[in-house]
Amino acid sequence: MKKVKLKVPATIANLVCGFDILGMAIHEPFDVMELKLLETSEIIIRHTDDFGLPEETSKNVAGKVLLKIQEELNLKNGFEVIIHKKIKPGSGLGSSAASAAGAALGANWLLGNILSKEEMIYFAMFGEELASGVKHADNITPCIFGGITLIKSSDPIDIIPLNAPDLFVTAFHPQVEVKTSDARQILKKNILLKDAIEQWGNIAGLVAGIQNNDFGLIGRSLKDVIVEPVRSILIPKFDEIKEKSLGLGALGGGISGSGPSVFMLSENEKISYEIAEMMKSVYRTINIESFAYVSKVNPKGIEIIEK
Amino acid sequence: MKKVKLKVPATIANLVCGFDILGMAIHEPFDVMELKLLETSEIIIRHTDDFGLPEETSKNVAGKVLLKIQEELNLKNGFEVIIHKKIKPGSGLGSSAASAAGAALGANWLLGNILSKEEMIYFAMFGEELASGVKHADNITPCIFGGITLIKSSDPIDIIPLNAPDLFVTAFHPQVEVKTSDARQILKKNILLKDAIEQWGNIAGLVAGIQNNDFGLIGRSLKDVIVEPVRSILIPKFDEIKEKSLGLGALGGGISGSGPSVFMLSENEKISYEIAEMMKSVYRTINIESFAYVSKVNPKGIEIIEK
Repeated sequence: MKKVKLKVPATIANLVCGFDILGMAIHEPFDVMELKLLETSEIIIRHTDDFGLPEETSKNVAGKVLLKIQEELNLKNGFEVIIHKKIKPGSGLGSSAASAAGAALGANWLLGNILSKEEMIYFAMFGEELASGVKHADNITPCIFGGITLIKSSDPIDIIPLNAPDLFVTAFHPQVEVKTSDARQILKKNILLKDAIEQWGNIAGLVAGIQNNDFGLIGRSLKDVIVEPVRSILIPKFDEIKEKSLGLGALGGGISGSGPSVFMLSENEKISYEIAEMMKSVYRTINIESFAYVSKVNPKGIEIIEK
Repeated sequence: MKKVKLKVPATIANLVCGFDILGMAIHEPFDVMELKLLETSEIIIRHTDDFGLPEETSKNVAGKVLLKIQEELNLKNGFEVIIHKKIKPGSGLGSSAASAAGAALGANWLLGNILSKEEMIYFAMFGEELASGVKHADNITPCIFGGITLIKSSDPIDIIPLNAPDLFVTAFHPQVEVKTSDARQILKKNILLKDAIEQWGNIAGLVAGIQNNDFGLIGRSLKDVIVEPVRSILIPKFDEIKEKSLGLGALGGGISGSGPSVFMLSENEKISYEIAEMMKSVYRTINIESFAYVSKVNPKGIEIIEK
């Protein structure tokens, strides 16, 4: 039967001021997923990693997406999926989104490309719902589209691919736990209109900067007066590593998704690696292990590496 | 002495979801301003219209701007200004901004183009402060730059010209009074985070749509869940004329600045005129006089028509 092997990248949701509406694909880290179409209706999920994720189909993110595809498309076929996960669950780097988007895109390829990207997002969101309780699309979308995407609405799905600026990304994952549900709960339900106006000025600037490859404008716009001041409390040394990153020449950056990962955008690779080293050394002073990845903005998203 | 004659256009601030950060220049209505450099230090202001605006220099919007320019640049020269105002004061179509921006741009030309656009905005904001008590730049900026502009910040001045999409604008001015100060006071100081997220998704979509000339996206993004629901109460029949405009084929629209004027964007001239007629006829049913203007988005802003 048909099979396909995918490279499924990590993604960074929010992009500082773009809470709940922006997402970006990067190259590192990434998962590898192998999907096979089966004659029988079984859906078999296997993980080769040690993260202890459930392999029972209905409890597995990829499994849930495939079940939904099988059900809504009335498929007689099933799927076998082997997941080599490298994006750590709970890192804030789109680990569950990678499984969900990879399942949707892989199944679509196996079925002869019958789904639009929006339909793949629709199915992948069931996986995100299983992982976090919320059907959000801000990691799935850049994973499938590549580059930086605007999720104008997830119901109905209204996606605007923006651009993939020629920038380097430092993605830093300190080994502290931030639950997405906690990160969401500590946000205030009410905000000041004046803060919202500042935020949407920055979002407008960020979108214009991304589209025009205006890196100075991107830097000036990467400011978050609403979410970051609250959520960054959950990430030790956040202010210090951010300030030092800017000192090293980063354009800007902030929390990746709901954390604990932090990302920084830079115009050159050397700065990105210096930021990675600096962040790791700051965390060594508080005896917390960490991982850092440097790669460019990923213009393609998921790639088929074998078929 | 040197003299210059300017065509100074009306402008539409906010553009629905872009409260306090977006502005757009149109062609109709417009003021004509004649400025002359004087050997003496006098600043003389004269209006040929019947709006009863003060002509005393320090109380006149253009006069205030010129006083500030004279003071900060240590000029020995003065200016004589004749203003043929057609943009009604209090219309919400940038009447005071036209006087302020025209004074700054005219003086700059007479002085040999010594100011940047940002410096012209800086001086023109003193005129806006005199008119409304607030140093806002969202009408001045498109008046000087043309097209649609993002006012990312007015202190420090950070302006991003976006684009001038090939669209028609219906600007409708019903003869009801809405004071800018009232329109600002009725806004709530606190808003819901979920509304803010919806708003900034629309702003991001609007900016992307403006830059890509994606008229469908512009239409889908012209939604305001925060300001319009409150301010539209001050404009009789607002919901009716908006709904009917969309029915006639408008992409979208809303309150111009703080009102009472209303604007609609359309892809063709015929629809724009039909909207103008419809709005006027709705207002006739409640015996309120109104004016309607149809023109394209103005890519140039202020034009020198004689020198």
